[in-house]
Amino acid sequence: MTAPAVPGLSINFATVRQIGSFGAIVDACLNHGITAISPWREHIHETGLAEAARIVAANGLRVTGVCRGGFFPAADAAGRQAAIDDNRRAIDEAAALKADCLVMVVGGLPKGSKDIGAARAMVADGLAAILPHARAAGVPIAIEPLHPFYAADRACVNLLGQALDLCDALGDGIGVAIDVYHVWWDPDLAAQITRAGKGGRILAHHICDWLVPTLHVLNDRGMMGDGVIDLKGFRAMIEAAGFHGPQEVEIFSENWGGRPGDEVLRTCVERYRTVC
Amino acid sequence: MTAPAVPGLSINFATVRQIGSFGAIVDACLNHGITAISPWREHIHETGLAEAARIVAANGLRVTGVCRGGFFPAADAAGRQAAIDDNRRAIDEAAALKADCLVMVVGGLPKGSKDIGAARAMVADGLAAILPHARAAGVPIAIEPLHPFYAADRACVNLLGQALDLCDALGDGIGVAIDVYHVWWDPDLAAQITRAGKGGRILAHHICDWLVPTLHVLNDRGMMGDGVIDLKGFRAMIEAAGFHGPQEVEIFSENWGGRPGDEVLRTCVERYRTVC
Repeated sequence: MTAPAVPGLSINFATVRQIGSFGAIVDACLNHGITAISPWREHIHETGLAEAARIVAANGLRVTGVCRGGFFPAADAAGRQAAIDDNRRAIDEAAALKADCLVMVVGGLPKGSKDIGAARAMVADGLAAILPHARAAGVPIAIEPLHPFYAADRACVNLLGQALDLCDALGDGIGVAIDVYHVWWDPDLAAQITRAGKGGRILAHHICDWLVPTLHVLNDRGMMGDGVIDLKGFRAMIEAAGFHGPQEVEIFSENWGGRPGDEVLRTCVERYRTVC
Repeated sequence: MTAPAVPGLSINFATVRQIGSFGAIVDACLNHGITAISPWREHIHETGLAEAARIVAANGLRVTGVCRGGFFPAADAAGRQAAIDDNRRAIDEAAALKADCLVMVVGGLPKGSKDIGAARAMVADGLAAILPHARAAGVPIAIEPLHPFYAADRACVNLLGQALDLCDALGDGIGVAIDVYHVWWDPDLAAQITRAGKGGRILAHHICDWLVPTLHVLNDRGMMGDGVIDLKGFRAMIEAAGFHGPQEVEIFSENWGGRPGDEVLRTCVERYRTVC
């Protein structure tokens, strides 16, 4: 009773965390015809890297990204080095899964700091430090610019153009994960997507929707079609820029997290077919 | 028992809404040595424009802004015209109070729309429509770029540079209100403040702080010093750009709104003197 294949749709494990283990989420996705996934490192660690890699290979899955590396800024050098070391391990995990990219949530201000410029410099330094390892492992690094709401505590890279400036400074092997939730409002969005495409920098396209009103700061992302983002128009820009990889659904939501995983996946497929 | 004067500090009425009427808030401010204010139109309407103007003149108050005009986008032409008409009345009210500016929260997406580009065009058209009246009345129009979090439902002008592009297109009589809360994270902040100063576009400087974590979407702004914004560094940029007007405290907060107005004002003065 496997559903018809849905090529072009990927499911980020955060969207159906309630289903459980790496293997259980994969099985549920396959039942809905979904053969592209994006796991978090906690799912990989819980199942074990070798077993996760076996599941991916045995089912011919495409891994559109591993979530996540980053969190480079720290109050002292030891903290920054620990972040770099952990990012190198994340690269090895992404390589084992033959992932399209390792997604970077770069980190915000170190505790007690009010210097976002310094935090941004730490991010650039951290990315530069891990990039040789990523290139050697064949894992593209995808900077995900996060909505400015998260500048202080999650990611001080907040604009697509800012992320592309970093890529330009760092060279090959690095690009961007473009999540509609974070960048849909940017007045420079069209120009920066075009720029990203010209540089071959688009590594992932994440989808969900922006609800009005948004009730919670962290966990009130919308299902595609329930909010105000012009998803078809967005995808047209992404494809015109040369990216034709899967659209990856990443929804952090108390609402959807409280529903059965099969209902969430069924809705993702339906909305992907109609509004994305 | 009037406190020593605190030149350079202005209080936006939203910060001490719990005190009550226009006159009551003014009396409380004067008791704390504060002689610059920024009322909302609801306070003006409740007291009556003539009485509000009398209170301002009798006490030699500086009105650093009237909050607020804007909300131009609407689903139909009648709605857009109604907004323009209301903005003209707001200009007349700001003129009667000899305000430094009328602050614009420009509005978000019309109901049912997913076209933020169209909303932005409606904002530009609305501002162009009211600007002749503002110039004739001698009331500078201050576009307040709002944090991207509010792009959908409050203001689709979300970057200082975007607001300045609008000013450049519209000509004289219009500038920006720069609120640290909305723009502190912008990687292009320093350059855009310099640009704003060169064009003589800085009309107001609003202060508060960004809390980590931020618990509520709308009403969890911080008191100066309680968050992560480098307020002294921000003010240095503003003054280097040529603006030396008062710093206006605008704090929407369930926490501070639940405390006695005198405690809030005393804290504003203390923090203004130490961290701003």
